[in-house]
Amino acid sequence: MFDFKLFKENKRSKARLGEITTDHGKIQTPIFMPVGTQATVKAMSSRELKEIGSQIILGNTYHLYLRPGDELIAKAGGLHQFMNWDRPILTDSGGFQVFSLADLREIEEEGVYFQSHLDGSKHFISPEKSMQIQKNLGSDIVMAFDECPPYPAEKEYVENSLNRTLRWAERCKKEMEGVENQALFGIIQGGVYPELRKQSVEETTKLDFPGYSIGGLSVGETKDEMYKMLDHTTPLMPKDKPRYLMGVGTPEDLIEGIYHGIDMFDCVMPTRIARHGQIFTHSGRKTIRNATYKQDFTPLDSECDCHVCQNYSRGYVRHLIKRNEILGVRLTTYHNLYFMLKLSEEIREAIRNDKFIDFREEFYDKYELK
Amino acid sequence: MFDFKLFKENKRSKARLGEITTDHGKIQTPIFMPVGTQATVKAMSSRELKEIGSQIILGNTYHLYLRPGDELIAKAGGLHQFMNWDRPILTDSGGFQVFSLADLREIEEEGVYFQSHLDGSKHFISPEKSMQIQKNLGSDIVMAFDECPPYPAEKEYVENSLNRTLRWAERCKKEMEGVENQALFGIIQGGVYPELRKQSVEETTKLDFPGYSIGGLSVGETKDEMYKMLDHTTPLMPKDKPRYLMGVGTPEDLIEGIYHGIDMFDCVMPTRIARHGQIFTHSGRKTIRNATYKQDFTPLDSECDCHVCQNYSRGYVRHLIKRNEILGVRLTTYHNLYFMLKLSEEIREAIRNDKFIDFREEFYDKYELK
Repeated sequence: MFDFKLFKENKRSKARLGEITTDHGKIQTPIFMPVGTQATVKAMSSRELKEIGSQIILGNTYHLYLRPGDELIAKAGGLHQFMNWDRPILTDSGGFQVFSLADLREIEEEGVYFQSHLDGSKHFISPEKSMQIQKNLGSDIVMAFDECPPYPAEKEYVENSLNRTLRWAERCKKEMEGVENQALFGIIQGGVYPELRKQSVEETTKLDFPGYSIGGLSVGETKDEMYKMLDHTTPLMPKDKPRYLMGVGTPEDLIEGIYHGIDMFDCVMPTRIARHGQIFTHSGRKTIRNATYKQDFTPLDSECDCHVCQNYSRGYVRHLIKRNEILGVRLTTYHNLYFMLKLSEEIREAIRNDKFIDFREEFYDKYELK
Repeated sequence: MFDFKLFKENKRSKARLGEITTDHGKIQTPIFMPVGTQATVKAMSSRELKEIGSQIILGNTYHLYLRPGDELIAKAGGLHQFMNWDRPILTDSGGFQVFSLADLREIEEEGVYFQSHLDGSKHFISPEKSMQIQKNLGSDIVMAFDECPPYPAEKEYVENSLNRTLRWAERCKKEMEGVENQALFGIIQGGVYPELRKQSVEETTKLDFPGYSIGGLSVGETKDEMYKMLDHTTPLMPKDKPRYLMGVGTPEDLIEGIYHGIDMFDCVMPTRIARHGQIFTHSGRKTIRNATYKQDFTPLDSECDCHVCQNYSRGYVRHLIKRNEILGVRLTTYHNLYFMLKLSEEIREAIRNDKFIDFREEFYDKYELK
């Protein structure tokens, strides 16, 4: 089953408060979704993910198809069982990763021929194949197989790509007919061309998906261009369906995306920077590797109440990161994900109390943008 | 404070049941001590260490002196505070690591001159300096600064080394005078020469330490030689003091060491093999990386009740290890340490019930030695 309830819309912005229901539980929106590319959110255990309030996580179809293989995961009882995660999972379609292979792939109407980034072996993924893989994975939310055009791209290229994405969306829908425990989301493309975004929304919503994502943003355009595109696109989208902004999710993107009416976010950035010794704090991003934190025995973020900030110091975490100790990456990853999830929770609370605009202003008063 | 109570001696072997008391809590012996070289037991968090029943962990003086520095750790409030571990800690003296530097060190009566393995910088550690570092670290059990001779070594070399170790032991004791919250253990050396082991016990125990370790074993000699040395040495040691076999700790070493009257063990092997994808099971060591476990969705060890074995499968852990995912190493490390601690606990229970010899036989009935 799949359901979306819209509880509230913010009066002074497009921010929304809602709830998604899946077979693996409910998801309070707006929400940040940690990314578990290879059937693991890097450096985190399932119980830690639950402890920090993860309601839904992502899996990547491209990676899981190659290794360990979707058929093996099906034999294990599906991705939930394989990775010991009993809450909702969203899987992408593999499209974005395949298109990112550049010289290693060829796009045809039928699908995409590509070579594995791991061993150069040859593969083919079509809309139907992507759905079959995602059925094997057993994710609660399945993404349509789309093309994400590069940035910058000529309007004609984006328009052709968009039309193919629409034809592929239909094929995905057909392939998923009769599947009741997985909800297929349509994807809005159109690059930075307002009229193409409009066309994409109109044509995609005609296919009547239970949810829609906005793809093709945060691929090289400026933040202003991205926010303009959101400002233009979300009002065209149906109110009674969840809206997912793909691959976007810094703290400021979360706030601005929600401001523009987005309900779901995912991004590898919080975990990736953690592995490089960077942390979120309420005053902005800090590079904990820096010598300045050597004798700093205060928490990573003095305003944070996570397990790491309650028990470990900047000086200790710096020592671990400098010495390449696994615990260092564990602690920064845990903290950064907690930061994103707690921020989501605080934003939901602010929307609930009609205080989102105040919250947004207060956040930027302290948070130094880079 | 420091105290050792001997509760029971096994009738059919030298196995003993006891309890050590320190300012940071009690330790039930015999016990395996996880190694936290750089102020972290690799890949484990403090609460996971507690969850698996770690009663005491090790820190390495040599590593901590170089990075982040014992003075920085003192500023943080000591090693317990720095690494968020409120149970007992034992630190080695740095001697073993310094002597392992081979060409990078020079031994004199005053102490050892050496170059850092990290950056080639020049340092000097004497018995007094080792004590000062360990005072800064604030460990509950402090090891004397000794020389661990290589294997093989001529009797004359071992005898000279042993005598220097005795002179150094006196200097360590003097340096620790008046320190009440840290117990200094003396170290028995003598290589594989029974008469030198005897001399070392006699002379070292004259200095009257609260505990004694046996050093210089598991450095290249055969298992038989090691067990023979234990068989010869432990009966010469005082019964009312804990006995620590340094750097030894495979499952079979634990059983044999306890059989020969040892109370404390430490070894990096369980965590090191975990990082290479090897696990302990009740039927022996397994290399979980192997293709044979690809579609094996049973627990790492079907007889184990640890969190990993209750929630994750061999096939999943293999996938993680193959993909170099941090969670893979976390899960194998957690399981291997649990295996060692649970084994310690079961052995204590067996000694308590006068069933240690039966336990030992039953263990080998199932556990395949390599």
